[in-house]
Amino acid sequence: MTHFLPIVRTGEHSYTLRVTEDLCVGPLGHVFLFGGAGLGAAVLALEQTFQRGLVWATAQYISFARLGAEVKLDVAIAQQGRSVTQAGITGRVGDQMIFSVLAALGEREGYPDRHWRDMPDMPPPDQCEQEPQRPTQDPNARLRRSLDVRAIPGAARREMATETGRTLLWIRQKESAPVDAAMLAVFADFVPGAIGGALGRNGGGNSLDNNLRVRRIVPTHWVLCEVQAQAAARGFAHGHMRLYAEDGTLMATASQSIVLRTYTPPPSESG
Amino acid sequence: MTHFLPIVRTGEHSYTLRVTEDLCVGPLGHVFLFGGAGLGAAVLALEQTFQRGLVWATAQYISFARLGAEVKLDVAIAQQGRSVTQAGITGRVGDQMIFSVLAALGEREGYPDRHWRDMPDMPPPDQCEQEPQRPTQDPNARLRRSLDVRAIPGAARREMATETGRTLLWIRQKESAPVDAAMLAVFADFVPGAIGGALGRNGGGNSLDNNLRVRRIVPTHWVLCEVQAQAAARGFAHGHMRLYAEDGTLMATASQSIVLRTYTPPPSESG
Repeated sequence: MTHFLPIVRTGEHSYTLRVTEDLCVGPLGHVFLFGGAGLGAAVLALEQTFQRGLVWATAQYISFARLGAEVKLDVAIAQQGRSVTQAGITGRVGDQMIFSVLAALGEREGYPDRHWRDMPDMPPPDQCEQEPQRPTQDPNARLRRSLDVRAIPGAARREMATETGRTLLWIRQKESAPVDAAMLAVFADFVPGAIGGALGRNGGGNSLDNNLRVRRIVPTHWVLCEVQAQAAARGFAHGHMRLYAEDGTLMATASQSIVLRTYTPPPSESG
Repeated sequence: MTHFLPIVRTGEHSYTLRVTEDLCVGPLGHVFLFGGAGLGAAVLALEQTFQRGLVWATAQYISFARLGAEVKLDVAIAQQGRSVTQAGITGRVGDQMIFSVLAALGEREGYPDRHWRDMPDMPPPDQCEQEPQRPTQDPNARLRRSLDVRAIPGAARREMATETGRTLLWIRQKESAPVDAAMLAVFADFVPGAIGGALGRNGGGNSLDNNLRVRRIVPTHWVLCEVQAQAAARGFAHGHMRLYAEDGTLMATASQSIVLRTYTPPPSESG
């Protein structure tokens, strides 16, 4: 089965990713590669190159990759040891840098395996409601059509977000592909929307970066994303996420900083 | 007054940092630049270069800079806009890469300013006890002599750490230098020790990276660092920190992944 992020290997340390509609988001007329899909493609390329699992990665998002573009991924080794690889990877369209990623990968045996914060209470996905996507997407920005995103029904969800900064989301890929580190990178890019919700706005802002830390992947269909908006000031905001498997295993954590969008009041307020 | 991190500008985009005893940690015979001091020096260089405040930065730690070495810092612009600068900066000793940093800086007016999680309850610093440094340091590794680090007294602290993964630390620089983003980067590197405590071990491990997200700096002497160990597996572990000013302002968040050290039982256990 083709991966949700269909990278193509073109050399020992190079790959390409075609920016298809299925990987894009964006409002009418502005369709671009979803940031989390960029980080996910980078993670997949790193794991294939080094044949090791991801430990952490941070993507710095520099420019947009438009629908139809081809992103060239180039891997660079920073340090390679017996059990840990440290590397970087860049994504470019022509001469334009799209993102820059730093990462570490590895596997070591004989160490503790635990988490400290258990999965929060949350109704099962079939008792939750579909999370609408904001802002309204261009018809060619189809990323969300392949994802199932669900939130607590009713007003409780909005109250929790604005009062405590917390948002709980069940997310799965509809085609039921196995969850891997690359897929978690895609889910990790739901922090900005949750920050928007915590600020009582539709939509969040533009990601400056996306940081993912993987403990261990276990078989799961749905992933519970527990997002904590942390703080906003100076036109920016910061948030954190814990990603749990259905069995309650904390698989990964993530965090992001975003540039807040200029607030445009909806027509009913400005009218 | 000289900054705690005395970088010297050598060009428009280049600086040096001498690795003095005051910036070093390490056990007997292995004295090296504290990772947080490396990130702090990079943050200071970025803020001086662009005359903007830090929004976020991530350092990837690749190699050790030994006592006496000179670290050369080179700034590279990735994207510069009206209100946001995205950049990278590397730290090298000779040809050896020590760390690589990605970052964004900026200031924008007219946006919300808030945090969502209030400062946790914690006795004031004068009712806390000095946090011992583990492992025992080489006499030339003097970083901790200029810092005052205090924890909740008694067994309550260890119980909280091992059961919930949480550690609360008051930290200040003894010379009462103003807290800035660079200083917060130093404090942010106390995540590994707290992970070690959560695992019931002395000492944490080697930082793979250090991520800092700054909301806003306010005048403060002490900083309350609320650390959450998140998860451990595969020989690695991950943790998160919130950094509060004395007045309760959440100034920044931070996170790290570490390589767990091989466990060596103390003599009383192995004997």
